[in-house]
Amino acid sequence: MTHTIVASEKREVVIGFDKPFCVIGERINPTGRKKLAAEMVEGNFETVEKDALEQVAAGAAILDVNAGVTAVNPNETEPPLLVKTIQIVQGLVDVPISIDSSVTAAIEAGLQVAKGRPLVNSVTGELEKLEAILPLVKKYDVPVVAISNDETGISMDPDVRFAVAKKIVEHAADYGIKPHDIVVDPLVMPIGALGDAGRQVFALVRRLRDELKVNTTCGLSNISFGLPHRHGVNAAFIPMVIASGMTSAIMNPCRPQEMEAVRGANVLNGTDENCATWIRTYKDYKPGEHAAPPAAPAQASAGAAGGRSGRRGGRAARLGAAG
Amino acid sequence: MTHTIVASEKREVVIGFDKPFCVIGERINPTGRKKLAAEMVEGNFETVEKDALEQVAAGAAILDVNAGVTAVNPNETEPPLLVKTIQIVQGLVDVPISIDSSVTAAIEAGLQVAKGRPLVNSVTGELEKLEAILPLVKKYDVPVVAISNDETGISMDPDVRFAVAKKIVEHAADYGIKPHDIVVDPLVMPIGALGDAGRQVFALVRRLRDELKVNTTCGLSNISFGLPHRHGVNAAFIPMVIASGMTSAIMNPCRPQEMEAVRGANVLNGTDENCATWIRTYKDYKPGEHAAPPAAPAQASAGAAGGRSGRRGGRAARLGAAG
Repeated sequence: MTHTIVASEKREVVIGFDKPFCVIGERINPTGRKKLAAEMVEGNFETVEKDALEQVAAGAAILDVNAGVTAVNPNETEPPLLVKTIQIVQGLVDVPISIDSSVTAAIEAGLQVAKGRPLVNSVTGELEKLEAILPLVKKYDVPVVAISNDETGISMDPDVRFAVAKKIVEHAADYGIKPHDIVVDPLVMPIGALGDAGRQVFALVRRLRDELKVNTTCGLSNISFGLPHRHGVNAAFIPMVIASGMTSAIMNPCRPQEMEAVRGANVLNGTDENCATWIRTYKDYKPGEHAAPPAAPAQASAGAAGGRSGRRGGRAARLGAAG
Repeated sequence: MTHTIVASEKREVVIGFDKPFCVIGERINPTGRKKLAAEMVEGNFETVEKDALEQVAAGAAILDVNAGVTAVNPNETEPPLLVKTIQIVQGLVDVPISIDSSVTAAIEAGLQVAKGRPLVNSVTGELEKLEAILPLVKKYDVPVVAISNDETGISMDPDVRFAVAKKIVEHAADYGIKPHDIVVDPLVMPIGALGDAGRQVFALVRRLRDELKVNTTCGLSNISFGLPHRHGVNAAFIPMVIASGMTSAIMNPCRPQEMEAVRGANVLNGTDENCATWIRTYKDYKPGEHAAPPAAPAQASAGAAGGRSGRRGGRAARLGAAG
């Protein structure tokens, strides 16, 4: 069984086919958030702190930390800003972090201060990138997100994307990095622009799981880009990728509809033992309120079949009769 | 490609892997609905009429019609009651119907009055049942729901349930009935009682599709029996079974959360061309309102990528940069 271990100083998170879907909170990222970028440049981390606390309360297992504010010389300015952001986050919450940067120097600086076993986000199939990032992954003994594009860009052919992922896994093996420390991002395209985007990613994830035996992740909300009621599309996508074998996603955990889909899929995928998290989260749920309270810290809960009788629908009744 | 054709006098519905998920409305069924049963016995079909109209407005493609009121001698009383109910339903709405009874005489009576090409619900793997129902299926040239249990009951072993389905398909072949006219119900167990129920059915549906090449259905809400917030569990289950290859379900179309999951899964499964139904249904959706208006009659709609800009999240922005 493929287990990717990510850890903070005090808490370990295991990404795996037999584990609850791993929600990596995406919020601490100034890309496309002008106000946050301006704050971070000014040394104001109030929004970062708020985002850290809210995401953990909402159920994030890992927090992605990105300090990629637009800058003239990111190689000089991003490393110290990322270090500062990481220190603030890990001083505030105890979940593991994902060090997210396209600047190699920032990733290395982050690795020097991150406690535990952070996730590196990311490497691609570009040779220059592989040769910059994989030595760091090996040196610090950490897992890495591998995005399945290379020098030729993002292929629209899923077979090519699979081949790129395979190339990354093989390249990593040359450095002594095991497949269980590589979390492949097969790249999710907007379904509104590419009608086959869903089926492509479902097939790809299944192959990545069956043939390369790697864990997988994605930037989840890309799927619904450009469509109305994006949360509804995201919430349908989550159970489908989980059914296809995806084991984590970089997403916004503060969206109740998406998190309900994650929790529901965990129940159905058999990774929410005795439906304990579901029952704890929704036992007092009233129809019409979509925002369920954040789940309390894990406590063994009563078995599922016990508490409630539920409405016994026609079909349920019939099963008995038919048997 | 496996296509199961079900039709009313005026409308044809095709169940298939490349078609939108087929929602079979379950409401017209007195099992567990004492008030409805009493009304039907009295010859009062107001609730039947209301249920027919509401389910079609909510998006049901087919209406299941069951007249199984508890009676001392159902072999005598159920056939005329089912006939009457079918006549009322098909006088009111033009979707195809599913003739649902455990009484063979009622099924035959229903077949005599149903217009078009109704679905017969159901046969099982029990020899007596096969020999009663399959000749009718052949005689009237109609498709049939095949429930994968037999004389030994409902097996907890999915391999046995697959074998029962295979036996039914083979038995039907002896009557000259093709696999595309058999819609297998692999039987969905409550996940609260059987933690493996989800994974079992996903694997079974995939095998039924890949090996027997049949369409599939289920009594959907069974999955959430006994759990709190059942609609949430159902809504996560729908995309997962669709991703696994299920092509229809007997369910309540008047539940907005479940129907949203169906529409979302159709988008992601590539069976909602240009996301037209999704856009038409949710273009004016406001966060917090879960009840979307029923979809208007199909009209070609604008392409998906056109209308809206959406929020371009960090990850979406980054894809561009990473490429």
